[in-house]
Amino acid sequence: MAAPSDGRHPEVATWVVRADKAVRYEVRMCRGLLDPVDTDLAEAGGSDAAGRRRFVVIDATVDRFFGDRIRAYFDWHNFDCTYHVVPAREHVKDLETATGIVRALDGFRIARRREPVIAIGGGVLLDLVGLVCSLYRRGTPFVRVPTTLIGIVDAGVGVKTGVNFNGNKNRLGTYFPADLTLLDRSFLATLGERHISNGLAEILKMALIRDGELFDVLEASGTHLLADRFQGQTSVSDRSADRVLQLAIDGMLRELQPNLWEQTLERSVDYGHTFSPTIEMRAMPELLHGEAVALDMAFTTVLAAHRGLVTAEQQDRIFALMRNLGLPTWHPLLTAEVLTEALEDATRHRDGRQRFPIPIGIGDVAFVDDVTVAEIEKAAAVLPGIATTAAESR
Amino acid sequence: MAAPSDGRHPEVATWVVRADKAVRYEVRMCRGLLDPVDTDLAEAGGSDAAGRRRFVVIDATVDRFFGDRIRAYFDWHNFDCTYHVVPAREHVKDLETATGIVRALDGFRIARRREPVIAIGGGVLLDLVGLVCSLYRRGTPFVRVPTTLIGIVDAGVGVKTGVNFNGNKNRLGTYFPADLTLLDRSFLATLGERHISNGLAEILKMALIRDGELFDVLEASGTHLLADRFQGQTSVSDRSADRVLQLAIDGMLRELQPNLWEQTLERSVDYGHTFSPTIEMRAMPELLHGEAVALDMAFTTVLAAHRGLVTAEQQDRIFALMRNLGLPTWHPLLTAEVLTEALEDATRHRDGRQRFPIPIGIGDVAFVDDVTVAEIEKAAAVLPGIATTAAESR
Repeated sequence: MAAPSDGRHPEVATWVVRADKAVRYEVRMCRGLLDPVDTDLAEAGGSDAAGRRRFVVIDATVDRFFGDRIRAYFDWHNFDCTYHVVPAREHVKDLETATGIVRALDGFRIARRREPVIAIGGGVLLDLVGLVCSLYRRGTPFVRVPTTLIGIVDAGVGVKTGVNFNGNKNRLGTYFPADLTLLDRSFLATLGERHISNGLAEILKMALIRDGELFDVLEASGTHLLADRFQGQTSVSDRSADRVLQLAIDGMLRELQPNLWEQTLERSVDYGHTFSPTIEMRAMPELLHGEAVALDMAFTTVLAAHRGLVTAEQQDRIFALMRNLGLPTWHPLLTAEVLTEALEDATRHRDGRQRFPIPIGIGDVAFVDDVTVAEIEKAAAVLPGIATTAAESR
Repeated sequence: MAAPSDGRHPEVATWVVRADKAVRYEVRMCRGLLDPVDTDLAEAGGSDAAGRRRFVVIDATVDRFFGDRIRAYFDWHNFDCTYHVVPAREHVKDLETATGIVRALDGFRIARRREPVIAIGGGVLLDLVGLVCSLYRRGTPFVRVPTTLIGIVDAGVGVKTGVNFNGNKNRLGTYFPADLTLLDRSFLATLGERHISNGLAEILKMALIRDGELFDVLEASGTHLLADRFQGQTSVSDRSADRVLQLAIDGMLRELQPNLWEQTLERSVDYGHTFSPTIEMRAMPELLHGEAVALDMAFTTVLAAHRGLVTAEQQDRIFALMRNLGLPTWHPLLTAEVLTEALEDATRHRDGRQRFPIPIGIGDVAFVDDVTVAEIEKAAAVLPGIATTAAESR
């Protein structure tokens, strides 16, 4: 700290305060998380055996499928738990739902720092609980257990929390990592196919921006992974399920870590996230997050093809893979007007420059600031035809 | 980041993410902040001259006294401003008031990072705007202009933001520093005497925990500073006003900087803040923050005297100074029952240990974990008599 002279007889009265905050968090893949003999969840937050209490927030759908096993697990490990069940859907991802969680947490009288909040659910639930924990007493540790594919590869591994506000996606939020995230793909067994596709959209994004090998694996086994819900019923599919998840998460964390607080606004992982926030909010509750991202990627692929950055053959492969992964490639909201407005909002968010991540072939990305309305109009005009052709060739 | 093997053929699937966030902020004393020729406020956030916009949040009372000058200032400097006036009082320091600010901010369509939000008001307003800015798009820079004494020496120099929730003080909040805080004591000219006393409570706290010299200065010139409202009408009082503010702020920042995110729970600056949150919330809206802190310090002084840590003579000096600074030393809520409950809540907040800052004489502090109900009962029983004696000797 630069203090005024000796602090006793100050003359210049300006102080500059400098400090560094060290952040550390762990993301761990595991299997059989709810088997009583497994200790990952029980030991999250310390392994002291006596007087253990936990505040557990569970998504309502997850509670229907896994509620009994979750309770049996914590009972077996002698925890005194308070369960708070939340129907966590995009259209209730708001301050009201968040304050409902805070109210229940107030009743629990948590000993913060020794009793981490446990969040079990999909991306919406993790974002909500993350926001609550970052605000509650200015920071209460929590542990994430994502139960959807998008939660496992996206919401569960980063540090962003948030709620929608005033019609804007994640308008309010914080950067607040869970101390520990436990990833168990056996939760995906009960997930509807559409929700598997939803997560595959974010995996496809990682492939498109940085990992041609992941793209190849998705081409080879995406259809099967979708049908099998990443359950690995054969040893081959078991390996490809692990491989896809590990490549996707590894890529994601390598992109996030150097820029955890988004001081750099050129973010590869923003690919598919320029137009999609507006599309997703306008279509609510019709589109899942990954579906909106897929629409954004489809449109951006065409835009990149028009610039000669993606070849016709690469465009065909991308659209064919999206179709095989069960992802939409066109939607009536993809009009030049809506897309232009979405780009304007993203530009404001990126401090006045587009910083638009545009794909270069498959597996690389660049940033441009010069996307024009004319280009958007042209791509929007041809997208329906390309999307229809891809769908018909199914 | 510790990644699974080479990231291509992963075997152990655990990632540990590590990152450091560097924080830097400036606190600057200045005079004549609203004089058109002064550039401190105009250049906060950069000195580019063209197309300048600002979203300015002003406390309603401040707006009554200084609104015209604030608008004239920004007009003179060619800013296009949106003014949002908030009646910022402790009993509306809540999420509803915060979301009202967010809604107005949404309408402003801010270019964050280039258009810092300007917050002009007392501690409540600064805490509210700080919370909004920390959440808005996960972080929007802001500049603070405290207009009350407590704002200048306390809320304006730290990094805490917050709102009350569910009857609990600052239950929701963040650590989010303003990039720049501009301190101008000429705002205090219009402040009621009670609000000067309110700020003197936090200054007295700094004296009691770390600065015997500051205590001496307060004894010598506190009465005059209170009557003069820190306006320095003579050159002697001008110097003592500067001196008291600089010593108080310097002490505060030296305590805060090494522990900006409160990872260490033994905090000297928590002196006067163990019982007061509960007292303040129960008495709402009767007590100002500094008054509740004064009550806490009066009670704790007696408790420390009973332990032999503060002599009878020191206790007399402390009570006499509190009286001269216009601070209360007793309140009907200071019952053993309420105080015990308050200590329990503080203990939860401090991770299960009291970590109770207790004064040692004047200018030093220690931390104890063994305050008993019997001690609280004894101190609560004798406090009214001591407070009455001090008041009668006025």
